[in-house]
Amino acid sequence: MSKTVSAAVALIGDELLSGRTQDVNLKTIAEFLAPVGIQIAEARVLSDDHERIASAVRDLARTYDYVFTTGGIGPTHDDITADAVAAAFGRPIDIRDDARAILEARYAETDVELTPARLRMARIPDGASLIDNPVSGAPGFQLENVFVMAGVPVIVKGMLQDVGHRLEGGAIVLSRTVRGKGLREGDIGEALGTLQDAMPELSFGSYPWFRAGDNGANLVVRGVDANALDDAVAALVELVKAHGRNPEVDPTN
Amino acid sequence: MSKTVSAAVALIGDELLSGRTQDVNLKTIAEFLAPVGIQIAEARVLSDDHERIASAVRDLARTYDYVFTTGGIGPTHDDITADAVAAAFGRPIDIRDDARAILEARYAETDVELTPARLRMARIPDGASLIDNPVSGAPGFQLENVFVMAGVPVIVKGMLQDVGHRLEGGAIVLSRTVRGKGLREGDIGEALGTLQDAMPELSFGSYPWFRAGDNGANLVVRGVDANALDDAVAALVELVKAHGRNPEVDPTN
Repeated sequence: MSKTVSAAVALIGDELLSGRTQDVNLKTIAEFLAPVGIQIAEARVLSDDHERIASAVRDLARTYDYVFTTGGIGPTHDDITADAVAAAFGRPIDIRDDARAILEARYAETDVELTPARLRMARIPDGASLIDNPVSGAPGFQLENVFVMAGVPVIVKGMLQDVGHRLEGGAIVLSRTVRGKGLREGDIGEALGTLQDAMPELSFGSYPWFRAGDNGANLVVRGVDANALDDAVAALVELVKAHGRNPEVDPTN
Repeated sequence: MSKTVSAAVALIGDELLSGRTQDVNLKTIAEFLAPVGIQIAEARVLSDDHERIASAVRDLARTYDYVFTTGGIGPTHDDITADAVAAAFGRPIDIRDDARAILEARYAETDVELTPARLRMARIPDGASLIDNPVSGAPGFQLENVFVMAGVPVIVKGMLQDVGHRLEGGAIVLSRTVRGKGLREGDIGEALGTLQDAMPELSFGSYPWFRAGDNGANLVVRGVDANALDDAVAALVELVKAHGRNPEVDPTN
């Protein structure tokens, strides 16, 4: 069986903690990594604080195979992620010629001036390799096992296209869902636990929903063995039927 | 000036890390706490792992004034938050009579049976006080400075109604936004940094957006002094005008 490869995500920005901005990047990164065979084991949402970012990145980079950061690499004073990641690894950081050349080429095509503020976006730690930004030009970077990306969701999606080929994935965790409309998870909790005990190589979860006039539970099973998942889905279907509900197997995952 | 009161949030559940579920509770909690005068300083998204949850809760409870957790207090085997929080504080945990009575009363009104699985939801650590759940009955709890809530968004909103009166808030951080349609943040980065240096008691941020045929930046200033914020908003309006754009001051925040 191939090895498990784990990742952590650091979502950086005061706006995520104040409630101003709803993060969507964690889900994007998770969905990008899953088919590569990398599971996100932890995520942190961090304020624009140099010490906290540096300390969290250092900690996460030691604990997990890969770390992905979003946010804080733009042209304004509150964009401090690049410096904090450099500090996490004790690397010098300054405006780097390769990154400056990318910005110069990009802005030469337009009427946009390469201001000192924009030159902040060419600050790249020594030894880092650049990550292409097909949306707005300013690159991200990879330093050791840490991938530093922008915060704007469309740029994150663009940058991930230059990240995948650098990753060494492991076992791909597959996920299957059996939807039980009207199912109350308290009715199947024991049986689900028994199923989990019987199939310890898989991971079973139950996710209820409550809406006006509509409730139920999604029973989800995850694991690397497709045959075992088929057996588990069959067992979940029986479980839902045994409680008088009509199971729907989600065909997409 | 009143003191700063900080909080951390732990969002618990494999489904948040796999990309299956988009968290919305962080934003709900942030918006609930802001008018009370409590700022979220950090958030973590944690997998359903007893040791990791216990360790993170212990760490966060020592570091911040309050900790709020969501997820993992339902009736199935993967609901392990209550036990992990008890472990974080070294408290015994078992089915408690007060919580059991709430469940019994709730289920007596319906045809739902109080199964052993549902009785898991009456597992409450010694010394914790219950948090009312107006949606589905099963209570959350407060242990020391940690508030343990469900993961289902509508239940989180319900439980927060029984949390507010227990919190001692501090300085209320106000936020104002000046929207600059067409504004490129690289053009105003230096001036914004100068403004930040001139008004160190406030916190300035710049949040660009990029959509097809539409781009711009929201300039946000946060702080506790309403007069200082008015001055800052006036300065931001001038800054946007000086770059040939039409500033819109968001009246709602």
